[in-house]
Amino acid sequence: MGDTSTLFELVAGGTPRPGQGGTGSVDQGLDEVVAWFRGHEDLEARFGSIFRQSLDEVLDGQRTGRFDIAGLAKTEKTYLGTKVEIVTRAGFELHYGAKMDYEVAGHEIDAKFSITGTWAIPTEAMGHLCLLMSADDHKSAFDVGVIRIRPEVLNRGRNKDGKTTITKQARGSIVWLARNASLPRNLLLSLPQSTVDRIRSAGSGQQRINELLRCVQGCPIDRNTAVTVAQQKDGLKRCRDARRHLRKEGIAVLGHQNDSPKIASALGLPVPEKGTFLSIRLVKVADDTDGRPVVEISGDHYAVSRPGEPVEPVPDIRY
Amino acid sequence: MGDTSTLFELVAGGTPRPGQGGTGSVDQGLDEVVAWFRGHEDLEARFGSIFRQSLDEVLDGQRTGRFDIAGLAKTEKTYLGTKVEIVTRAGFELHYGAKMDYEVAGHEIDAKFSITGTWAIPTEAMGHLCLLMSADDHKSAFDVGVIRIRPEVLNRGRNKDGKTTITKQARGSIVWLARNASLPRNLLLSLPQSTVDRIRSAGSGQQRINELLRCVQGCPIDRNTAVTVAQQKDGLKRCRDARRHLRKEGIAVLGHQNDSPKIASALGLPVPEKGTFLSIRLVKVADDTDGRPVVEISGDHYAVSRPGEPVEPVPDIRY
Repeated sequence: MGDTSTLFELVAGGTPRPGQGGTGSVDQGLDEVVAWFRGHEDLEARFGSIFRQSLDEVLDGQRTGRFDIAGLAKTEKTYLGTKVEIVTRAGFELHYGAKMDYEVAGHEIDAKFSITGTWAIPTEAMGHLCLLMSADDHKSAFDVGVIRIRPEVLNRGRNKDGKTTITKQARGSIVWLARNASLPRNLLLSLPQSTVDRIRSAGSGQQRINELLRCVQGCPIDRNTAVTVAQQKDGLKRCRDARRHLRKEGIAVLGHQNDSPKIASALGLPVPEKGTFLSIRLVKVADDTDGRPVVEISGDHYAVSRPGEPVEPVPDIRY
Repeated sequence: MGDTSTLFELVAGGTPRPGQGGTGSVDQGLDEVVAWFRGHEDLEARFGSIFRQSLDEVLDGQRTGRFDIAGLAKTEKTYLGTKVEIVTRAGFELHYGAKMDYEVAGHEIDAKFSITGTWAIPTEAMGHLCLLMSADDHKSAFDVGVIRIRPEVLNRGRNKDGKTTITKQARGSIVWLARNASLPRNLLLSLPQSTVDRIRSAGSGQQRINELLRCVQGCPIDRNTAVTVAQQKDGLKRCRDARRHLRKEGIAVLGHQNDSPKIASALGLPVPEKGTFLSIRLVKVADDTDGRPVVEISGDHYAVSRPGEPVEPVPDIRY
């Protein structure tokens, strides 16, 4: 605690630390932890998939059909922090600290997740480093930062669990590992409510998947979206089966195998990764069509249909 | 509340209801809910897999290596009840009730899970039916029962959340859907601590799986056990790869495909289901061997080795 009180005196003595969030401070532990994380080239992507995975697991869309954490029970929101702590530990292969959640670069560090970014700091964290994490699924954004917990960074009031929050001022001294970084999109959350309602009220799991593929064209549909809509483990199979149902409507459901990637690529569409699907309405066009991407399938040329173009059955695609 | 007070008077008036756990009562709602559940032929197996799945998901062995709920944090233990509620709803395709967790056969019913079987009953449950569930992973056993919550079945004291417990006497009036039923085994929990330590300290994920397959022979190793030991998603691949590592030690790792089922069956061993493995040390025996099950592999006869029999490489098995 000697270190803590010294710094407290400095601050009390009118020598505020610069709040630029840089690492140019005297806190070697903080610097080393920050450097350790920044040593990961895929740092943002790794945290992004950690938060996506944690949110999806607690939502448990396959069983509950939920895709918005606003619908979580209080116990589930509390547990979300624990899940993030676990998934982060596994995602970076971190060891447990002796007192705190992790040991990183030889330093103890506590994991704190908050949906809103108002982290609840426990008394035990005093003097320790905290990995501050928050994720906003509606904005598809997340923040990760590191701070040393000292008396002067905390608000005075404590809740019944003895926890308090970081002062507005001290937020400026958080060293950010990721700021407003890109959280992998929650597709269903990005749809208008009317579309979600249409999908939900379509009937069976297969019919809901069919409706999803009618409503959401041209952008990849991930596994979690499929199992949440189908409310079945085999949501991906339902997407494959939808090919047969949507054939007459001219809607092709591209996957990651056989001719699918080639077709997506030729049409200038994102190529579906394994476990994702891309729904698209095709229209037959003249062989000498110009000005729009076309692809040859079974001897004919096809383009992504525009509104008003005729509906034709999907040609035979080696999916 | 009229109904409740009437019954309370009856009890207070010295006319206790029989506590035999039968359904021969005047409670039609309870009878109908019990009948609805009992209408499922696979009722016990279904609840068993619901509890196994819930425990395994909260333990999250793949990420944490944990297999004993004693090691869960408080938030995780609380969440376990929510997980059971969700998995039960999905497992029986139940609808939400207007006030309680489920609607079953037209009646509201609240889900209550307790590791210890001391269910915490909230005030809101008064007058309603409760689905009481508990699972003991150490004993591989679970209980499921239904009770109507009335003032006289509850203890007087309440905890800070306003919850209380069912009286010892009233436990006799629980209608059991499953009593001391068989919870799918938690393999790692059933091993001696020394064996667990040996597996854990074996080194890499592959080495830990190899050690598991050395230590646990003749009984199926399920997917969750494999991912918990490997602490990797591809725990099953590690089991397949172990064949190569354990070949010289005479240990065959049977799966569910090709010649594996035939070999397991001929040797009188359980035939591995999909996603499970069976480890066994084989020894070459004379063609006219009698008194022990043998199987012919590549022209030679093999039996399950007994202690002291020579170690020979595993023959070529079409796994």
